[in-house]
Amino acid sequence: MSDTAGKSIFCKAAVAWEAGKPLTIEDVEVLAPRAHEVRIKVLNTGVCHTDAYTLSGVDPEGAFPCILGHEGAGIVESVGEGVTNVKVGDHVIALYTPECGECKFCKSGKTNLCGKIRATQGKGVMPDGTSRFKCKGQDLLHFMGCSTFSQYTVVTDISVVAYNPKAEADKTCLLGCGITTGYGAATITANVQEGDNVAVFGAGCVGLSVVQGAAARKAGKIIVVDINDKKEEWATKFGATDFVNSAKLPEGTTIVDKLIEMTDGGCDFTFDCTGNVNVMRAALEACHKGWGTSVIIGVAAAGKEISTRPFQLVTGRVWKGAAFGGVKGRSQLPGIVDDYLDGKIKVEEFITHRHPLEKINTAFEDMHNGDCIRAVINM
Amino acid sequence: MSDTAGKSIFCKAAVAWEAGKPLTIEDVEVLAPRAHEVRIKVLNTGVCHTDAYTLSGVDPEGAFPCILGHEGAGIVESVGEGVTNVKVGDHVIALYTPECGECKFCKSGKTNLCGKIRATQGKGVMPDGTSRFKCKGQDLLHFMGCSTFSQYTVVTDISVVAYNPKAEADKTCLLGCGITTGYGAATITANVQEGDNVAVFGAGCVGLSVVQGAAARKAGKIIVVDINDKKEEWATKFGATDFVNSAKLPEGTTIVDKLIEMTDGGCDFTFDCTGNVNVMRAALEACHKGWGTSVIIGVAAAGKEISTRPFQLVTGRVWKGAAFGGVKGRSQLPGIVDDYLDGKIKVEEFITHRHPLEKINTAFEDMHNGDCIRAVINM
Repeated sequence: MSDTAGKSIFCKAAVAWEAGKPLTIEDVEVLAPRAHEVRIKVLNTGVCHTDAYTLSGVDPEGAFPCILGHEGAGIVESVGEGVTNVKVGDHVIALYTPECGECKFCKSGKTNLCGKIRATQGKGVMPDGTSRFKCKGQDLLHFMGCSTFSQYTVVTDISVVAYNPKAEADKTCLLGCGITTGYGAATITANVQEGDNVAVFGAGCVGLSVVQGAAARKAGKIIVVDINDKKEEWATKFGATDFVNSAKLPEGTTIVDKLIEMTDGGCDFTFDCTGNVNVMRAALEACHKGWGTSVIIGVAAAGKEISTRPFQLVTGRVWKGAAFGGVKGRSQLPGIVDDYLDGKIKVEEFITHRHPLEKINTAFEDMHNGDCIRAVINM
Repeated sequence: MSDTAGKSIFCKAAVAWEAGKPLTIEDVEVLAPRAHEVRIKVLNTGVCHTDAYTLSGVDPEGAFPCILGHEGAGIVESVGEGVTNVKVGDHVIALYTPECGECKFCKSGKTNLCGKIRATQGKGVMPDGTSRFKCKGQDLLHFMGCSTFSQYTVVTDISVVAYNPKAEADKTCLLGCGITTGYGAATITANVQEGDNVAVFGAGCVGLSVVQGAAARKAGKIIVVDINDKKEEWATKFGATDFVNSAKLPEGTTIVDKLIEMTDGGCDFTFDCTGNVNVMRAALEACHKGWGTSVIIGVAAAGKEISTRPFQLVTGRVWKGAAFGGVKGRSQLPGIVDDYLDGKIKVEEFITHRHPLEKINTAFEDMHNGDCIRAVINM
């Protein structure tokens, strides 16, 4: 047991007091973990578009004040009663998609969307309905069951997984969301096969991870579509065979036309990693008649809808989606860390910016800059 | 060889001279089949909503004058050069979805949408670009590669399949479209498994065939949704466990709410057999989070689009579709006929009306009447 077990820990955290305002670094109290809860000393966290989406205020489920962050890794500081899957000192990744192994979803074998703590996680509280964070006399809400923008956080035991400690948290944190989301979408949700033609819309961390997943499967063409020419070099680095700037097509040629031409009929798989519903439609319609499958990964703005002619589906295209790449965090993420250690999955290559916790708002600014793939925060 | 081989045959056919007008019975000339073509003496044809759709004039690809009909069975009268898959005297079903076995689509093993003659079939002509029908000095167009509203018709050899002659054409004709479309959507496209909860929107011939496909797979709940209470008895007859009149739900309850409640979270599979894009959306959203799959079978009106929030897909629902139930006509339809002969598939039970060719317009009227499941024409 650590000296701090069973007691509150006082540390720094980046607090989101209200929508649309920068985070502020505060001294927060992190309560001791209760039964089936785990307190993690967070070492590193990524900053993801979903954090920015909620902070912007357009996320209808966003609630404040809260501690954002859902892409983090660290070391177990203490555990509550009944925790058996991790122990003090374990190197762990926090899981915004938990895995209880007991609910209808987990037992189905068909999805990674565990339902056990969904309701309370959505409300920003622990399963007993309360928060483990206090600041300036008030409770702070949790975020996505993770809240990794704090030097210490508390998560449920089904929301954490231990991995080979040879891997370092400043890399593995990115396996908590972006990289795994893209890699899993290609290798699990789509299950790309050798020779398949693939198009990936949006060359950020998720899109480039789809590319490396498709490359790992020895896909045929791996076409990256973006509107920023600087992404061509990135795409190539992760295994893309082609790059198309969809903003620079000849007059009268749509990206759907272009992809159908490049693949002699359409793609076997396409992936939307933009969150733009018009791109989602193009991704579907660029699929090959008869079997082409489009996977939506990006998160659309509230109220936005996708649409297409039903004929697209009647003639054999399939529209699906994935959250966390279809990866079951506790069962499958340690294997992905091992693949990283074995050199099969690039991770460090995504990191373009590093900042200390105090500079976390700079990391949010970095994201709007085409040169940033991922910013990692050292806590 | 028959006496008529190599010569024109003069017979009766129901001709669609223009959109929106009743068919007229005419004396037509049916030219001899050319290389890789088969002339069929049509014994029976069903009348399907797709025929009515094209006749109405709203089908943007409809072209006139033509001979409609695509759900027909008969006997091979003569064959052109190079035809090896059927011979004179064979009992056959015409296939609007051909199967060449050689094109990219057929070879893929992933779809039944053969591409070999798609372009010419869509234009209403044989693969050499010409028609085999003449009337009053002009050519008549073919329809869906079948044109079964004629006592004789000519189809390509990849558009016809022979079956066990113990089955009678006045039943097997319905396996040329409606029954196979629904049964295949359940057993091939969706591949319903024992215990799965299924909802079927629209209890016509296609919808009831989905029901019998789901029942054959020992599905759990098989819920039929329609707005006509008379369909409850029909639904039960084909194996439905529940019936919901979606027009009579309590105020404030949607059909999506109702189905999610009845299935404790949503359906494993839903099927749209209405062609209504709002119903298609409800069918998708009534699917179970994580894995529920919705199959679009109905043909929507021109220009209509489906839409939903992408979150529906990101949380694991799958949207797909099927044409001809995913059934490969030449490989798989003879087995379906055998299943009918073995009592595994109901066919005769769908037939509510029978008419001679001269009364074919009455069959179109029957369709708008809630008591009609299928009208069969005796040629």
